[in-house]
Amino acid sequence: MSVSENGWVVIAGLGPGDEALVTQEVRDALAQATDIVGYIPYVKRIEPRDGLTLHASDNRVEVDRAAHALEMATEGKRVVVVSSGDPGVFAMASAVFEALEDGKPEWLDIDIKVLPGITAMLAAAAQIGAPLGHDFAAINLSDNLKPWSLIETRLRAAGEAGFAMAFYNPRSKSRPHQFARALEILREACGGDTLISFARDVTKPGQTITTVPLKDATPEMADMRTVVIVGNSDTRVVGRYVYTPRYAPDQEGSAA
Amino acid sequence: MSVSENGWVVIAGLGPGDEALVTQEVRDALAQATDIVGYIPYVKRIEPRDGLTLHASDNRVEVDRAAHALEMATEGKRVVVVSSGDPGVFAMASAVFEALEDGKPEWLDIDIKVLPGITAMLAAAAQIGAPLGHDFAAINLSDNLKPWSLIETRLRAAGEAGFAMAFYNPRSKSRPHQFARALEILREACGGDTLISFARDVTKPGQTITTVPLKDATPEMADMRTVVIVGNSDTRVVGRYVYTPRYAPDQEGSAA
Repeated sequence: MSVSENGWVVIAGLGPGDEALVTQEVRDALAQATDIVGYIPYVKRIEPRDGLTLHASDNRVEVDRAAHALEMATEGKRVVVVSSGDPGVFAMASAVFEALEDGKPEWLDIDIKVLPGITAMLAAAAQIGAPLGHDFAAINLSDNLKPWSLIETRLRAAGEAGFAMAFYNPRSKSRPHQFARALEILREACGGDTLISFARDVTKPGQTITTVPLKDATPEMADMRTVVIVGNSDTRVVGRYVYTPRYAPDQEGSAA
Repeated sequence: MSVSENGWVVIAGLGPGDEALVTQEVRDALAQATDIVGYIPYVKRIEPRDGLTLHASDNRVEVDRAAHALEMATEGKRVVVVSSGDPGVFAMASAVFEALEDGKPEWLDIDIKVLPGITAMLAAAAQIGAPLGHDFAAINLSDNLKPWSLIETRLRAAGEAGFAMAFYNPRSKSRPHQFARALEILREACGGDTLISFARDVTKPGQTITTVPLKDATPEMADMRTVVIVGNSDTRVVGRYVYTPRYAPDQEGSAA
């Protein structure tokens, strides 16, 4: 079967929740779509209309969902795969390319575009102040797709090299002890006085932001709706804001 | 002098260049502003109108520019400090908080908001495919505000821990040899087969994207208008796209 010239797949970032953070580029793609594919809560954000079919699916079926999107495009459908945040950051873009690699050869002819969005860590950082204003690392703390030992290695490496850090999926009911271990490693690698911020339901109703020194952080401060940001040793409070200066902390320079 | 209740400072991200990537939240702030402050090329992106004063300034005067914005807010002005990309990523947000910390005590009462934008690395990643689809680090390769030795330390730490990486300000005329050294370190830490992408003028007319293995990368592939993205050892090509799988590369897991 050949690929219809009219079909396409767009992987679009809806941002963290506030509709004012959706780009015009993404709005335009949604307006042209025949089919929307995505995780249930993200598909719920799409306004139903005539000629638009919504395909909502559960979590952890990302590659099946991606294959479904690609197959529909070969049939001439204009498919938007919706992600929260940015599709390229711990979201659907990689899943679509995984499905493409393992899928039918004709899928390689499909017109696929990734449309960026405001990812959760940058929305959270903006609400906090500027905690990621210097070099930083983004780490997914879920061990669904990688061994926990690798997460520990990366936390330690990033902390010891003076990176600020942002954590996605910091804690779930199925692995309650891991985030406690992560906090231990961070205290060792970054020191107990380094600031950590917990941003829950960012840009949504009921948003909460809490900042404490690492020595006072407890695992219960995070859940799966929280983005966690750890500063570097120079991150500080000014007024109502937490920020990381653009210049380098001295002690890390000398430790180099 | 007390702070006028009507004045405010918004630090807004204009995204990488394409106007379709500016959020509605930022458009609304620009529409309410009396004054726009920023680096010359970013202020040029703002449509002039009656009642709006444009204050364009040169590079490397970020803190002076921020202080000017804060002072105008105390006089009742509605000031938008414009950044390219996201203001919290190697841009104006930290500079405003630095100015706030060192400035007049009454500035602490100013209503300051940071409005996120599409940062260059995520716009570039979307054009490339999904090279940042796994844990990654964002590093500013300019040594204006930190010692070069610290940059080397961070490149090595991130590479050895299997982070993908995005580099801002990779190369300038004033420091032509440093990026060659960065490539050497990356080849040592990540291996010569790891893919590196050079995204120049992302989302602007004349955009170019080049991907090569690290062993074939040369310093001339980057300049100050380029965002550079290095994958991890599992980053691969599928069709016209480069992506990093969501799962972890095995060899880094075992090295942990």
